[in-house]
Amino acid sequence: MNRKEIIFQIKKKKSFLCIGLDTDIDKIPSYLLELEDPVFEFNKKIIDATKDYCVAYKPNIAFYESMGYKGWQSLQKTLDYIPNNIFTIADAKRGDIGNTSSMYGRAFFQKSNFDAVTVNPYMGRDSVTPFLDFKNKWVILLALTSNNGSLDFQSIQDSNGTPLFKRVLETSKQWGNFENMMYVVGATRAEQLLEVRKIIPNHFLLVPGVGAQGGNLQNVAKYGMTSDCGLLVNSSRGIIYAGSGIDFAEKAKLEAQKLQHEMSIILSQLSI
Amino acid sequence: MNRKEIIFQIKKKKSFLCIGLDTDIDKIPSYLLELEDPVFEFNKKIIDATKDYCVAYKPNIAFYESMGYKGWQSLQKTLDYIPNNIFTIADAKRGDIGNTSSMYGRAFFQKSNFDAVTVNPYMGRDSVTPFLDFKNKWVILLALTSNNGSLDFQSIQDSNGTPLFKRVLETSKQWGNFENMMYVVGATRAEQLLEVRKIIPNHFLLVPGVGAQGGNLQNVAKYGMTSDCGLLVNSSRGIIYAGSGIDFAEKAKLEAQKLQHEMSIILSQLSI
Repeated sequence: MNRKEIIFQIKKKKSFLCIGLDTDIDKIPSYLLELEDPVFEFNKKIIDATKDYCVAYKPNIAFYESMGYKGWQSLQKTLDYIPNNIFTIADAKRGDIGNTSSMYGRAFFQKSNFDAVTVNPYMGRDSVTPFLDFKNKWVILLALTSNNGSLDFQSIQDSNGTPLFKRVLETSKQWGNFENMMYVVGATRAEQLLEVRKIIPNHFLLVPGVGAQGGNLQNVAKYGMTSDCGLLVNSSRGIIYAGSGIDFAEKAKLEAQKLQHEMSIILSQLSI
Repeated sequence: MNRKEIIFQIKKKKSFLCIGLDTDIDKIPSYLLELEDPVFEFNKKIIDATKDYCVAYKPNIAFYESMGYKGWQSLQKTLDYIPNNIFTIADAKRGDIGNTSSMYGRAFFQKSNFDAVTVNPYMGRDSVTPFLDFKNKWVILLALTSNNGSLDFQSIQDSNGTPLFKRVLETSKQWGNFENMMYVVGATRAEQLLEVRKIIPNHFLLVPGVGAQGGNLQNVAKYGMTSDCGLLVNSSRGIIYAGSGIDFAEKAKLEAQKLQHEMSIILSQLSI
């Protein structure tokens, strides 16, 4: 899915919501465990209930990987079930030397048909660019993450006072363009989005940390939004585990709807 | 496998060789393609031929992942086939927020039974420590990698002139100890091992880049070895693709033997 289509969907649905499918077999309603593929059944119901309110789904690959090859089957079935007009992100945080990153690209873009994969910048250019060789696919590069540990290294300042995450933005924006690269920038420090926008005014940002991790949607929009939105704001646990009973999908729908409603107001205020 | 056992195996086999199982279905001998699981059959023959000369195997997870769930089955069969006295490393370069890293830990340490997993430090402490919660397992943290792109960020100096990879070593060594953490330090800049040893005198290092990437074994040993070895030196393509015909395993054996012989001389010179 290209940039134009993403923006079209955002305007059509009045939403820039991404739903994280961090599906944990220990957390899903117990009645699903009797079915052959409980993880897929859970995802299917979540997708049915929320697909009108979001523009992206982001399966968190660790949760599937932890279940061995069966988890990969559940993941593939989930991916196949997601409607074509919804952007799909493999939240995998991969990255390795060139020929290995190519293999990860093959895994997520060819063997599976994800639109995007999250990539870790630590190993530098030749660990990222192999993902950009896949036509019409996206790298979503980690810049500033939303966890506590993000301060350990991402905020280390160089001799000019520039923190590492800004060096990552400055250097990596030359590797691709805003039609094949996005960035992960956490919502927990929304005012830093202003700084980010000075370096990459047009790239889409994938913003985790709204909800469970404490980020505020209004601030994210205030500091990070561009004239064509430029944001995908993710919520995972706050939506998919909103309920724990037989009505979990209905509860998830209500949470997704609530966020989408808030987003529609923000978008209309900015005439997007 | 704990540190004591690793050192015991190094002394017994007079080898600190790790063999990378970067098994690419497009590169293995064509006659194997007729078999049900060509990747496993290739690995099996490589393991049979080389197991007496190495102390560790390191499957590169991307290569298996690129084949979908069948790749994960080949990987599991390979892992099960590796003798118990050989250290196993999932070269996965994972790392994510806490609950997600726990899931990756579960994937590699419980669902599979790897001894170690390679982890990317970019997201900081809470992305790494969940892997350390698994008893008798190892994190092998990326510090200085052997690819060209490693210079993009790993060598950025802070206001005191300390490069990022040293900050990673200094900070992360407090998260675990030399009985549950190792570090990846590339062989292509062997003299930097001296600097690394000032920060972590006792941790084991996993050293890629010998062979195909141009690193030199003598220099790695000269600058990086400790009194109980403290090194696992990896070779992947130089061994497993030494031959391309029906005798590929024999060719791989000769390459492994050659490296082990060189290692045995180094170890005996240092009375290890």
